[in-house]
Amino acid sequence: MDFNRYFTLQLDKLHTAGNYRVFAELERHSGGFPRATRHRGDGTTHDVTVWCSNDYLGMGQNPKVIAAMHAAIDQYGAGAGGTRNISGTNHAHVLLERELADLHGKEAALIFSSGYVSNWAALGTLGAKIPGLIIYSDALNHASMIEGIRHSRAEKRVWRHNDPKHLAELMAADDPAAPKLVAFESVYSMDGDIAPIAEILDVAERFGAMTYLDEVHAVGMYGPRGGGVAEREGLMDRVTIIEGTLGKAFGVMGGYITGTRAVCDFIRSFASGFIFTTAIPPALAAGATASIKHLKQSQAERTAHRNNVAKFRAMLDAKGIPHMHNPSHIVPVMVGDAKKCKWISDILLDTYGVYVQPINYPTVPVGTERLRFTPTPMHSDDDLRHLVDSLCDLWSQCALSRAVA
Amino acid sequence: MDFNRYFTLQLDKLHTAGNYRVFAELERHSGGFPRATRHRGDGTTHDVTVWCSNDYLGMGQNPKVIAAMHAAIDQYGAGAGGTRNISGTNHAHVLLERELADLHGKEAALIFSSGYVSNWAALGTLGAKIPGLIIYSDALNHASMIEGIRHSRAEKRVWRHNDPKHLAELMAADDPAAPKLVAFESVYSMDGDIAPIAEILDVAERFGAMTYLDEVHAVGMYGPRGGGVAEREGLMDRVTIIEGTLGKAFGVMGGYITGTRAVCDFIRSFASGFIFTTAIPPALAAGATASIKHLKQSQAERTAHRNNVAKFRAMLDAKGIPHMHNPSHIVPVMVGDAKKCKWISDILLDTYGVYVQPINYPTVPVGTERLRFTPTPMHSDDDLRHLVDSLCDLWSQCALSRAVA
Repeated sequence: MDFNRYFTLQLDKLHTAGNYRVFAELERHSGGFPRATRHRGDGTTHDVTVWCSNDYLGMGQNPKVIAAMHAAIDQYGAGAGGTRNISGTNHAHVLLERELADLHGKEAALIFSSGYVSNWAALGTLGAKIPGLIIYSDALNHASMIEGIRHSRAEKRVWRHNDPKHLAELMAADDPAAPKLVAFESVYSMDGDIAPIAEILDVAERFGAMTYLDEVHAVGMYGPRGGGVAEREGLMDRVTIIEGTLGKAFGVMGGYITGTRAVCDFIRSFASGFIFTTAIPPALAAGATASIKHLKQSQAERTAHRNNVAKFRAMLDAKGIPHMHNPSHIVPVMVGDAKKCKWISDILLDTYGVYVQPINYPTVPVGTERLRFTPTPMHSDDDLRHLVDSLCDLWSQCALSRAVA
Repeated sequence: MDFNRYFTLQLDKLHTAGNYRVFAELERHSGGFPRATRHRGDGTTHDVTVWCSNDYLGMGQNPKVIAAMHAAIDQYGAGAGGTRNISGTNHAHVLLERELADLHGKEAALIFSSGYVSNWAALGTLGAKIPGLIIYSDALNHASMIEGIRHSRAEKRVWRHNDPKHLAELMAADDPAAPKLVAFESVYSMDGDIAPIAEILDVAERFGAMTYLDEVHAVGMYGPRGGGVAEREGLMDRVTIIEGTLGKAFGVMGGYITGTRAVCDFIRSFASGFIFTTAIPPALAAGATASIKHLKQSQAERTAHRNNVAKFRAMLDAKGIPHMHNPSHIVPVMVGDAKKCKWISDILLDTYGVYVQPINYPTVPVGTERLRFTPTPMHSDDDLRHLVDSLCDLWSQCALSRAVA
């Protein structure tokens, strides 16, 4: 087989379908975020405003986070130097795990290389190591959860997105004695909708299931201490495992789970993706700890963020730019065509200095292609006006439909 | 099901078998490595010398690496802020990928969150996306490769460790038209033996297979520019994909693959574990780039390292402490009993200030339990003497067998 030819052919298919991904090469400016310098393919650069970052609150440039990272590098050095078991557990990891357990009101926490790995490893291990476990997975769960469940080879049932009734039907149809786990998210990344957590927990508890809640798009953002939607709704104690990330609102990198001492220790002891991998650098652990501590106390970022999101939605409404109405901070502006979506984002970037990545299939269904905006507290009123004016121009040029006012 | 009770029971089994892992909580001292402060469970601390780090060359405290990380944090901030596709590609990632491609003489490179993820995602994607692919996997391949192959659900053949003849037999028995991939490592972590790379490539080429070589324990360490064992032996151009880590000899964190533009782009475009995860922080990319650049030019670390390893082996031989003779930098001192292995390492840590983690089943087979030492260029002659004297004491106390001189 001519492997290289095969790879090239498959890539050509992506190009033809308009699904080939071109990464925007950026230099974020610490202290100047959401401003960034973009490197064009030809070696030139220009200034852009980032409108699609998952550094939702700009904590990636928070002075306390930066200072904690600098201090940890000077104190401990660059990397952790090993797996958690073989010389890689630094004091900074232990402090971070304590901070995370406290954030979610749980006994213990466990850090992973990323949110992806935490979902994959935790669900993969639970599914593989609890004999007969049936996993009930929301239809729109993230790829990392799907891959973890698939990897575990446990029985899997997919319930209709955010539909506790369907979940109950599926659970009622299974052996009452079978161990069960319900896996879902709070804020869904692409539509920005929020799960009816209490109702889902009601169902899960009725059937004696453990629950696994992914709060990666919510930690730091919701709840009085940034514990996520489950904190806001007073439900954290009812969730068996809360999973989160250090790489979005907390502004650093890494993933984690929190739960009882026993469940964290179980996953710590059996998850290949946890055991056989180098621990995150102490500087990341220290930066994340500083970020969590800050957002436990400070409401300023969350308040400013909510205000900016509301302002942006109102401005879109005033101009009739169609966006998905949802109760979160994610603002999907609907285009509904892969090529137009890519074309608009290219012009926004090249001509208007507005950077937003087009979201096409397979990340979202065909026909729902969109621009996914994530306004931060750092975007100014001028930024918002410039963005909405730019969108207006392009909506007219592309003859895209407007929302009915 | 009482989940917590189930978890506790499984953990009790680990305790009973002597396989429960207790993490040593350390504070590495940048500039003072391999010295570290250990936090005991009771809150007190004491000084230890780390003897089992995978920061093989001490690059985790190299001033150029530290400076590059500080500079990148000040310039770009803490995290990358998104996946590589959605606002997370920083200029620093692009520079690192160029550096890695150059290191291995390949067209392109692709960074992952970790070495584990790079193996899992690359092999998982190739196995799943090349119809009919048969993967030939060395019997001692790392967990991350095994999990990636398993996840792909491709046909798999396991060949006897480092045995190209057996590989050839297995390949000859399969359909000549089937696409094939041979996956193996250069330096194996626990025995420290090195693969006969040229012979394996001969076999693979005879059957038209692509090759996947994990050099995580070799990059930075072997070859005139630290390109690994394949560089040392002039074989890099014959390997389809070379995989490595930024978290061991390079002293930071992250994993990567290098190969043709097409194969890297293919994995970039289809690997779930690459696409749906936050990019590594720019500071890690910048630190790793500085580390690679340094080790491309400097032989000092590699020379000092080889000298220390040779010195250590000679001292062990002089005292009759049994260790596995291998051609690498990894020195496994054989104990052959799980409980003694744990007991010796506990006393070394508590009484002698020598930190080496016991390596027991399932990481190594029962009866081959060991202490895995990794002397660095930073260990002094006094450190070596203290270590060997401590081992001598314990060998006598435990009535462990000595090697025949």
